[in-house]
Amino acid sequence: MTDIPGFAAIAPQLERLAIEVPSWAYGNSGTRFKVFGTPGTPRSIEEKIADAAVVHRLTGLAPSVALHIPWDLVDDYAALGEHAASHGVRLGTVNSNTFQDDDYKFGALTHVDAKVRRKAIDHHLECVDVMDATGARDLKIWLAEGSNYPGQADLRGRQDRLAESLAAIYDRLGEEQRLVLEYKFFEPAFYHTDVPDWGTSYAQVSALGERAMVCLDTGHHAPGTNIEFIVMQLLRLGRLGSFDFNSRFYADDDLIVGAADPFQLFRIMAEVIRGGALDADSEVAFMLDQCHNVEDKIPGQIRSVLNVQEMTARALLLDRDALAAAEEAGDVLGGNEVFMDAFQTDVRPALAAWREERGLPPHPMRAYAESGYQQEIEESRVGGTQLSWT
Amino acid sequence: MTDIPGFAAIAPQLERLAIEVPSWAYGNSGTRFKVFGTPGTPRSIEEKIADAAVVHRLTGLAPSVALHIPWDLVDDYAALGEHAASHGVRLGTVNSNTFQDDDYKFGALTHVDAKVRRKAIDHHLECVDVMDATGARDLKIWLAEGSNYPGQADLRGRQDRLAESLAAIYDRLGEEQRLVLEYKFFEPAFYHTDVPDWGTSYAQVSALGERAMVCLDTGHHAPGTNIEFIVMQLLRLGRLGSFDFNSRFYADDDLIVGAADPFQLFRIMAEVIRGGALDADSEVAFMLDQCHNVEDKIPGQIRSVLNVQEMTARALLLDRDALAAAEEAGDVLGGNEVFMDAFQTDVRPALAAWREERGLPPHPMRAYAESGYQQEIEESRVGGTQLSWT
Amino acid sequence: MTDIPGFAAIAPQLERLAIEVPSWAYGNSGTRFKVFGTPGTPRSIEEKIADAAVVHRLTGLAPSVALHIPWDLVDDYAALGEHAASHGVRLGTVNSNTFQDDDYKFGALTHVDAKVRRKAIDHHLECVDVMDATGARDLKIWLAEGSNYPGQADLRGRQDRLAESLAAIYDRLGEEQRLVLEYKFFEPAFYHTDVPDWGTSYAQVSALGERAMVCLDTGHHAPGTNIEFIVMQLLRLGRLGSFDFNSRFYADDDLIVGAADPFQLFRIMAEVIRGGALDADSEVAFMLDQCHNVEDKIPGQIRSVLNVQEMTARALLLDRDALAAAEEAGDVLGGNEVFMDAFQTDVRPALAAWREERGLPPHPMRAYAESGYQQEIEESRVGGTQLSWT
Amino acid sequence: MTDIPGFAAIAPQLERLAIEVPSWAYGNSGTRFKVFGTPGTPRSIEEKIADAAVVHRLTGLAPSVALHIPWDLVDDYAALGEHAASHGVRLGTVNSNTFQDDDYKFGALTHVDAKVRRKAIDHHLECVDVMDATGARDLKIWLAEGSNYPGQADLRGRQDRLAESLAAIYDRLGEEQRLVLEYKFFEPAFYHTDVPDWGTSYAQVSALGERAMVCLDTGHHAPGTNIEFIVMQLLRLGRLGSFDFNSRFYADDDLIVGAADPFQLFRIMAEVIRGGALDADSEVAFMLDQCHNVEDKIPGQIRSVLNVQEMTARALLLDRDALAAAEEAGDVLGGNEVFMDAFQTDVRPALAAWREERGLPPHPMRAYAESGYQQEIEESRVGGTQLSWT
Repeated sequence: MTDIPGFAAIAPQLERLAIEVPSWAYGNSGTRFKVFGTPGTPRSIEEKIADAAVVHRLTGLAPSVALHIPWDLVDDYAALGEHAASHGVRLGTVNSNTFQDDDYKFGALTHVDAKVRRKAIDHHLECVDVMDATGARDLKIWLAEGSNYPGQADLRGRQDRLAESLAAIYDRLGEEQRLVLEYKFFEPAFYHTDVPDWGTSYAQVSALGERAMVCLDTGHHAPGTNIEFIVMQLLRLGRLGSFDFNSRFYADDDLIVGAADPFQLFRIMAEVIRGGALDADSEVAFMLDQCHNVEDKIPGQIRSVLNVQEMTARALLLDRDALAAAEEAGDVLGGNEVFMDAFQTDVRPALAAWREERGLPPHPMRAYAESGYQQEIEESRVGGTQLSWT
Repeated sequence: MTDIPGFAAIAPQLERLAIEVPSWAYGNSGTRFKVFGTPGTPRSIEEKIADAAVVHRLTGLAPSVALHIPWDLVDDYAALGEHAASHGVRLGTVNSNTFQDDDYKFGALTHVDAKVRRKAIDHHLECVDVMDATGARDLKIWLAEGSNYPGQADLRGRQDRLAESLAAIYDRLGEEQRLVLEYKFFEPAFYHTDVPDWGTSYAQVSALGERAMVCLDTGHHAPGTNIEFIVMQLLRLGRLGSFDFNSRFYADDDLIVGAADPFQLFRIMAEVIRGGALDADSEVAFMLDQCHNVEDKIPGQIRSVLNVQEMTARALLLDRDALAAAEEAGDVLGGNEVFMDAFQTDVRPALAAWREERGLPPHPMRAYAESGYQQEIEESRVGGTQLSWT
Repeated sequence: MTDIPGFAAIAPQLERLAIEVPSWAYGNSGTRFKVFGTPGTPRSIEEKIADAAVVHRLTGLAPSVALHIPWDLVDDYAALGEHAASHGVRLGTVNSNTFQDDDYKFGALTHVDAKVRRKAIDHHLECVDVMDATGARDLKIWLAEGSNYPGQADLRGRQDRLAESLAAIYDRLGEEQRLVLEYKFFEPAFYHTDVPDWGTSYAQVSALGERAMVCLDTGHHAPGTNIEFIVMQLLRLGRLGSFDFNSRFYADDDLIVGAADPFQLFRIMAEVIRGGALDADSEVAFMLDQCHNVEDKIPGQIRSVLNVQEMTARALLLDRDALAAAEEAGDVLGGNEVFMDAFQTDVRPALAAWREERGLPPHPMRAYAESGYQQEIEESRVGGTQLSWT
Repeated sequence: MTDIPGFAAIAPQLERLAIEVPSWAYGNSGTRFKVFGTPGTPRSIEEKIADAAVVHRLTGLAPSVALHIPWDLVDDYAALGEHAASHGVRLGTVNSNTFQDDDYKFGALTHVDAKVRRKAIDHHLECVDVMDATGARDLKIWLAEGSNYPGQADLRGRQDRLAESLAAIYDRLGEEQRLVLEYKFFEPAFYHTDVPDWGTSYAQVSALGERAMVCLDTGHHAPGTNIEFIVMQLLRLGRLGSFDFNSRFYADDDLIVGAADPFQLFRIMAEVIRGGALDADSEVAFMLDQCHNVEDKIPGQIRSVLNVQEMTARALLLDRDALAAAEEAGDVLGGNEVFMDAFQTDVRPALAAWREERGLPPHPMRAYAESGYQQEIEESRVGGTQLSWT
């Protein structure tokens, strides 16, 4: 079952696939209606990192953990880095937060009041301090700002202020550091968001400089948006900084990547490969950003990185010469068949073998269930306050 | 300005317009990212009712307050009713809640476990007890249940169990009481919801009996849905129980009704009138269900009932004979012009005069600002815990 | 590769899968911008049937051909039936057409003018005459009617007239015949359609009688609609008459079924099986309704029936006991994994073997390419007028 | 009724509002299902221009007529210009067409075959020849190209070829001429379009030079898109070339502008004014692009320009100081009320007076009905072939 034609040839590229996991995925999350707690949920960033490390240990796919400031603020980042290293992972992207302070009710980097903007800029400068301390390359900025009612805010003035604020942050970056600006269609603002689409993010980062990039969260688009097209375009323009992977049926559902539409994930990975984002010199970062509201968190993360790996393997199997030949011949069904052949290939047995060759468990989900880790944390993590978004 | 042709003729129907306000609108609400608190927010159901009463006092439009159980549980409903009456309002629809108990993580009325279903049914029976105590007519059921991942749940089994559970609740109703079942497209469940559309609600309530009706929340539909068509259809089928008014740009944004698309609200009210839901014998209930995340709550409610009143007045001005004549003549532009003429009529001056005739302030928003009520509650409501959804 | 566990067990059900093909799929189709013609396109219903027969000969999946009146009007249906039989297929569902006569510009069955309604009803009675002549069971009604502008039409009056018109048609049916009413979200009408959703179709057919059913076209829903839920509900209510299969990214794109979202097709077939629609006594009809605007038509149809077969096979492999166990345990990821296991199983080799056992070519697409049929029709079908929608 | 406070002050800006009408709006149009013909429809470009001139004569709002090549190809553009001038209008934007030639089935400017691309480029060069002859400033390019199935085409290769083709066209422009690139979400291609969003159009035109701009068609966005945000952003970036006005409920419905969501049109015009696009030195062009499928064409166009004028007048009345003050105070409801006050002002009487002052009929729709023009063309335009899109 593992002798898929061409599988051996794709192993080097598969080897390069690394997916950063977010620290906050191991805490509780939910909707505005309810956040369900679960036994074993971490009470500290150290426990989150320990959980994240399990994902990497069982899959070999998740070598780094993204931090969220201030949720993951600590006094000693060197110690935190050592803690991570001792668990076999490292600290990754630093995410800022401008959506949970009362001062930001009507905006942060775009606020009409210069004092509030200054506060928000300073928060980002502190995030760069954290990056300096941890050696992180990327500062990821997702802005919750916008407005709920027409007339509440001046769209244009906010956009101009956003440009100024971002420039102040960008100036603080070190030479090896990057600013990555995420866009989002809506939520928590319901009439307008200040960075609603890739075009806005692209226009803003282009004005900053070479080390400003766009972050594409797969759940942050209007219904029906062709996401792989945006992947193609941003790679073509040299501005795709990173992915936030998740999946959705309706809005920003933050479900497990690949769960809602596996074929879409395949198409995205096919465009990732087409655009060179899995090449040896690629600087595109892959990251999860999900909410495990009703499912177990650690296996939820394992499932997620496996889904990305499976669709990446299928996409790597794509016969691009045959595709090109079909396109040149105007053979619509032929091209589609080549494409679907790769998508329909069941790569799971081959990936199980690939794992075993690397000393990893062939079936990470099963390995986790059998590891006893879940029972262990459920029993040991008693008392304290389970972490969540707040 | 107040001498709009035909305005005098519509006054009796305007007189009948009553919009129930939800107790929870006066507490804090927000998104999964943040709930902003505001000074003066009620700490008790009594304070919520006091705030709601201000809306009615200034507009004459909001004579009753909906309760939400368990948020508004009290020991003595007779006393609560007297409290309301002393403020010039009365207690209205009772709303159940099956989305904030850990037992309901995977369903309530549809849960695979009979014990959980029994608990959820019993909760509804308690709600009927409250109705008996307050004299409320309607039990409104909105179900948060559903699933997030394909394979998580058996859609069919859940639907059958829903029918059983609803029947158990329906059986408990008194002869003058009604069960009103709300539908919702998605959220908090992201793959399927157990009552996603009006068709499902209609099929379920039809199986129960004459006193089971559908609740139409204007924010609970797929993008692009023609909501006035559903209003027409449910009135035609005799199953429109009530409205939950709000507005939206994207998902279930719960913004002020009429804020996102005033023309849609006009069309809805036109169909309400066309279907007899403002007639003297109508049993259709109108209610707000909104979240004032960033705007002030009491004036947010005043604005809302005024928006409904304004669009109702415009819709009442519609020249239906001219519409019918245009339709018979196949005169598309003529019919549309008649329709838009009513929509574009600025009824605000006439409504201000209408209010004055009834001893109400002509400009309720201004009257509230000048009343000092907001300052008063901000100063007096110190200490205690501001109420919110949890 | 063909020894998929459990595959042998599903063969009897696979055997029952039959997908009706529409005669019009073999003619030219397009968008409002352009209809591209292709060499070999049929000039007569006889040629369409010949082409349809090729699909069945190579797949064993498409034993009948749906007719569209008046596009497929002939003088002698007995002769047409014999023609079909001689090609190894039979005549199927009769589709009416009320969207291409100038009289129907503002409606047909709902028109404000009784004479137009009568004309439209009479057209349907003629369709039943065709059914009598061909032995068809189903009269399928898709209505293009609606309005483009608010105020153009009275939604309620049209709905009432629709009920009357349908009753007049229903009364004419023979005891073994059925009326199947299709719904569609929008297009060609852009403000309202008279049968926009399954709820309306369900309410209308329920009022008619036992032999009136709903037709679910997979492309006729609002963005984000959970279609398998509707499949479940209509089967539960005993009113799912037939499917019109196709796929879409945006609107009613009428692409090859399974092309846009194969996982959705899998979920739909899983619900079809769950609801008994593949059982021996099922009366649910499966049919394609697609437009091969840019791809070759005959292989487009072959690809389509194969896609349905593949997803049906995967859905039949679903381990429903394991699913039920996961649901009872509240094991979200476990249930999802069982579900995805079936979806990710590559059934193509097993189906190729299954075909060979039945004397069919293992690879129908390849067999068609090698058959020379396409060249033959391109050469022989010279002169005459290629058929299209008009 | 005409003494709206502030109305006198906005007259100069109202004066500047000019809306180009498309020649093709006066011909027949429809959907893929049916094109309805109507008596009096033009048989030549000269008759189209005559009809367009009526719109301008009655409204003073539509001084120019856009041409579509090859639909409006003539031998002598000087003569055509004189014909237009004699009717009181002039020739405007030249629109290219790459969607109705069989060679363009799989693309034009993006086609994989250099010969087809050359043909498509040459077509655009001919369009510039027409511009030279007519004195038109703008070449508007809407591309129908894309693909229907994943695997059919290489998204990236097509984007690169698009850039090359556009550069070849741009190079041919005179110093006073502009290239305006339109984007469209979907249709007639259903999987991907080569210019799907404003970001792509912006990236492409930015690479060309200063005289390359974006065209925003109000119907070419995903559901829920905040269009006024894009207006703001393109104006801010200096790349908003022109508008194609129309309205929609679902997809690219091409209904009369302002018919589906008048409040959206108001918000768009408010952002137009905010961004300076109605200033004296603005080069932003306003144009209709609609399909009058079921309504009369000439009054359909009159209604359209009036709708734009009405919403422009309302938007000009917006009290921007009050808005700014509300934003600075964080007064959400206050800002919204200022915004809605302008929207709810019934400007029709004031505009009627404004027209009379300028020698125009106060009620253009009525004036058209009473003019006898429709009867005249219905009687005189007998024989010949009514023009439509093909």
